[in-house]
Amino acid sequence: MNYITGYYTTKFGEIWEKSLFDLVKEAITGVLKQTNLTNKQIDAVFFGNMLAGVLENNLHSPSKISEILKVNIPIFRAEAACASGGAAFNLAKNYLDANRNKNVLVIGAEKMTDYSPEEAITGLSAAASGEEQEAGLTFSGLYAMIANYYLEKYSYSEKNLAYVSVKNHFHGSLNDKAQFRRKITVEDVLKSAYVAYPLKVLDSSPISDGASAVIMTNNPDWVKKQKYKAAVLASEVATDTISLKERKNIDEILATKIAANNAFKNAKIDRTDINVAEVHDCFSIAEILAMEDLGFWKKGEGGENIIEQPTMFGNGGNLIVNTSGGLKAAGHPVGATGIKQIGEIFLQLTGQAEKRQVKNVKYGLAHNVGGSGGTAVVTILGI
Amino acid sequence: MNYITGYYTTKFGEIWEKSLFDLVKEAITGVLKQTNLTNKQIDAVFFGNMLAGVLENNLHSPSKISEILKVNIPIFRAEAACASGGAAFNLAKNYLDANRNKNVLVIGAEKMTDYSPEEAITGLSAAASGEEQEAGLTFSGLYAMIANYYLEKYSYSEKNLAYVSVKNHFHGSLNDKAQFRRKITVEDVLKSAYVAYPLKVLDSSPISDGASAVIMTNNPDWVKKQKYKAAVLASEVATDTISLKERKNIDEILATKIAANNAFKNAKIDRTDINVAEVHDCFSIAEILAMEDLGFWKKGEGGENIIEQPTMFGNGGNLIVNTSGGLKAAGHPVGATGIKQIGEIFLQLTGQAEKRQVKNVKYGLAHNVGGSGGTAVVTILGI
Repeated sequence: MNYITGYYTTKFGEIWEKSLFDLVKEAITGVLKQTNLTNKQIDAVFFGNMLAGVLENNLHSPSKISEILKVNIPIFRAEAACASGGAAFNLAKNYLDANRNKNVLVIGAEKMTDYSPEEAITGLSAAASGEEQEAGLTFSGLYAMIANYYLEKYSYSEKNLAYVSVKNHFHGSLNDKAQFRRKITVEDVLKSAYVAYPLKVLDSSPISDGASAVIMTNNPDWVKKQKYKAAVLASEVATDTISLKERKNIDEILATKIAANNAFKNAKIDRTDINVAEVHDCFSIAEILAMEDLGFWKKGEGGENIIEQPTMFGNGGNLIVNTSGGLKAAGHPVGATGIKQIGEIFLQLTGQAEKRQVKNVKYGLAHNVGGSGGTAVVTILGI
Repeated sequence: MNYITGYYTTKFGEIWEKSLFDLVKEAITGVLKQTNLTNKQIDAVFFGNMLAGVLENNLHSPSKISEILKVNIPIFRAEAACASGGAAFNLAKNYLDANRNKNVLVIGAEKMTDYSPEEAITGLSAAASGEEQEAGLTFSGLYAMIANYYLEKYSYSEKNLAYVSVKNHFHGSLNDKAQFRRKITVEDVLKSAYVAYPLKVLDSSPISDGASAVIMTNNPDWVKKQKYKAAVLASEVATDTISLKERKNIDEILATKIAANNAFKNAKIDRTDINVAEVHDCFSIAEILAMEDLGFWKKGEGGENIIEQPTMFGNGGNLIVNTSGGLKAAGHPVGATGIKQIGEIFLQLTGQAEKRQVKNVKYGLAHNVGGSGGTAVVTILGI
């Protein structure tokens, strides 16, 4: 069995005084300190990053991390758009399953705010198909098409989506690493400017800087001595077409459904066992689809279910979602997101989630998506 | 045990009529046909690519490959500069070691000739440190510094390096997938224009397009039925500083030494057991260092040893090197190189190397380097 034994994340936001690798170094130093590990006790490193090549002509990060960590071990970079962090984590789990008694460091990081919004948006559009890019479809545009289809098909309005952002901003107000700490109302969301109809600024995750890291290990003797630990019960990756037009249904993310089904099968638990989940809310509509495609809610009912806020902290629900603030309020430094999600579940399972600590947490799930659903990674942790 | 059971490569060169994913599709179709596998029999895909993000704003390739292959399985992209192919192969091996009875498809590809040499060189420099980029150091410049140091330290001249290119062009003349099919002489090399003193055009690998793919499997029943198979005895990755100035010695590639030592230890064979090797000759000096750092030749003796061409096909040596033509003559579509090297060893081990078939091949080695030595991957195959 593989265990997570430590997590550190930088603050997410506009961190202009730090470069990409300054953030990576902070995350590495932080997580090693927490776990009392030295650099020489790390056997391999897996790094998730999407945009450093496109934005700052910065590739070959495995070698840069070797320089920072002062080691000559295997180091890998995974890139799967906004699922780069989740993909890196999955590869790290494979490494542990293939090798006994090892400690791996898994890092995700992104540096986005040194560039103009146009540059960042062009970079992000690299995760869409060539045709979609040529048509001028940004990710706001792609998710807007999905949102329009969903709202029309199930007779919902923009207001139904707004509850997602209200919940996640409330959670962000409880997380001192979050980019946005301010609570918002449904009216705030509805009054905010359109980005791509029906999605508005307050339906959308921001452009962010940040780095997150976890230590994962399969050394049973070492695990016994650790104060904080969570078992990795499953980590599953699935893929789908990069082009929205090639999908059979655009009111579901097939890759999420497949990854979730495989993950629950491997973890040998039911949906109802999950107490906390971090789901990929790059836009409000994405959290609604995620709740349905992960199997927590029935298809088409998410727009209705969200109104009573059963997944909001403090409302007494059995499943609390995006306690970190989600991508919406915690921020979305792309490569870091998948690791931060897993880290937040680790904090909840080990009683370290401070003001947002959910009670009696036994199982948690993290859900990371790349592009408009071309990649999905589902990870289940337990204590 | 993991086995390679099939290999396909596109021609390498200036392939203006095909896009990156046209090349990927050709490689996938080719290797599936050779192994009589359908898309549904592939359990995971690992893709090595360096420059698509930088050159053509093309990321999230796992999802694009899902669309091409019409599957929803785990697909990953690895990037480690010029070692992206080798890194993808190593991750694929981890996947097999972690999961029983699986078939994986490993692809490497690069599309470079649609862009100006300046664009390609700027993209390639993304594999160097930020300081090196700011100083205007291209990879020709970095390897020129290494070459000057080596030639001075061991009292060699540019002529010693020239033999590497002469050998590899001769081998390229025997490989109909190679970018350059023309034999050259030592005089041709010495007369060619300087790129970065002491390295000249004919010391340097070209800018190329191409895609290569192998099938690797750990399904023993299926392996038994295969006509062609080679066992993967070891695949090891090591890293080092991205900056040349942070290295203790610049006349050796430490990552190569570490990866090779680990690989020979795991494969349980000696250096003298290797009959064929593909080594990373991005520049002539790189093959000399590789032969020394892999442990085939003593440090400092490579410049002398190469003169008699003991590693040239047809000269009766025990170890023939870069029968594909190497990066120099076969071409260097960056992400494809690490897979082509492994594929060439597979062809030699299974008697499919046609005009360049070495006799009585039992063991072969592939050696893939990223940047100026920040990543090295060493793979050993046997029959």
